[in-house]
Amino acid sequence: MTTRPAFIFDLDGTLVDSVYEHVLAWQEALNSEGIELAVWRIHRRIGMSGGLFTHQLLRETKLEITPERIERLNHLHAKAYQNFRGMIRPLPGARELLDTLTRAGIPWAIATSGRMETAAQNLAALGVTPETNVVVTRDDVKYAKPDPDLFVAAAARLNAPIIDSVVVGDSIWDLLAAQRCHALGVGLLSGGYGLGELERAGAYRVYDDPADLLYHLDEVGGRR
Amino acid sequence: MTTRPAFIFDLDGTLVDSVYEHVLAWQEALNSEGIELAVWRIHRRIGMSGGLFTHQLLRETKLEITPERIERLNHLHAKAYQNFRGMIRPLPGARELLDTLTRAGIPWAIATSGRMETAAQNLAALGVTPETNVVVTRDDVKYAKPDPDLFVAAAARLNAPIIDSVVVGDSIWDLLAAQRCHALGVGLLSGGYGLGELERAGAYRVYDDPADLLYHLDEVGGRR
Repeated sequence: MTTRPAFIFDLDGTLVDSVYEHVLAWQEALNSEGIELAVWRIHRRIGMSGGLFTHQLLRETKLEITPERIERLNHLHAKAYQNFRGMIRPLPGARELLDTLTRAGIPWAIATSGRMETAAQNLAALGVTPETNVVVTRDDVKYAKPDPDLFVAAAARLNAPIIDSVVVGDSIWDLLAAQRCHALGVGLLSGGYGLGELERAGAYRVYDDPADLLYHLDEVGGRR
Repeated sequence: MTTRPAFIFDLDGTLVDSVYEHVLAWQEALNSEGIELAVWRIHRRIGMSGGLFTHQLLRETKLEITPERIERLNHLHAKAYQNFRGMIRPLPGARELLDTLTRAGIPWAIATSGRMETAAQNLAALGVTPETNVVVTRDDVKYAKPDPDLFVAAAARLNAPIIDSVVVGDSIWDLLAAQRCHALGVGLLSGGYGLGELERAGAYRVYDDPADLLYHLDEVGGRR
């Protein structure tokens, strides 16, 4: 009896090089609302549910939490992120990694805390089409990361048991969510977290980027 | 016999919130030269000597290293960074920390790998004037971080022994340079490195940002 794990990937910072642009887009959105927050603190929250993110910020900055303000912040962020349109590129090895899995018959999916509205341009840069590949976004589940719903939904659509799946992500929210659903979490440094942060959040292994994961695919069950 | 340490601060990411803007400015400069590099890899090199930085990049990307190309990259970076003019703010607690040291009669200086050309707007945001405060820049020394020259020069100008000085920085280059000159390195997370990375580079203590360091100043010899 052997198990051949399915692979479930986060998108921003894991397959596409978009984290720093998201960070500065959030800063611009927050500044427009008169909220000053150091950039590194925004960075450390990228990848978690946008709703949780804005709720936490408003709580910390003691500003009033209204649905209108949260809606406005999300809209300002999406608008600021559009300024980076055309500058977002796949991370080294991302396309090759997905192609390798496809050729080897290993099921894979993408599960992102973002909405299809912002994810679409990144998927296009990656050559992934939601019509032929399994892509789960914020629009498909009630709760995003660090809740495990996105990963559970992705495994279900792959018809693979989540507890035999490998979840690949660059943020601690991916790894915490992976633990919540008993998947194996693999960290990538390409989102700008440090190795120790990812290990403390439960990473089974940590690699530099998709190219480095592809090179070591056999270590995490990606038998070709 | 008691020693009262002098404090030597890095600038970007340590006192002003400018690292992420420098990162994207470098990416823009590199892209203009046709050099594609993942953003997190640029982030991890911020704070080191600009000359070393560009030399390393050109070596890794196997591009020809010419003085003209390095000069052009440095110019493109400075130009792209200018686009963030007016958006750069002091980190929380930075001004209060410097004021507290001044009031307590504890000598302090700023030592940055940047040139005065780019540092000037950050010093202005911080309310520091090179006429009345000790500021050492890339223009004053032969080698920047991770060489210790900047810190050694700053201590000399403070008339303080470098081996009794506390060097405060957000990047591993600050901490490696501090070790090179036997100063005590204190790390701050406000530049976006992880705690483990700073500790591995030799940090004696790590704090969130200048406000957190101010709160714990007695732990590192800042007796008021």
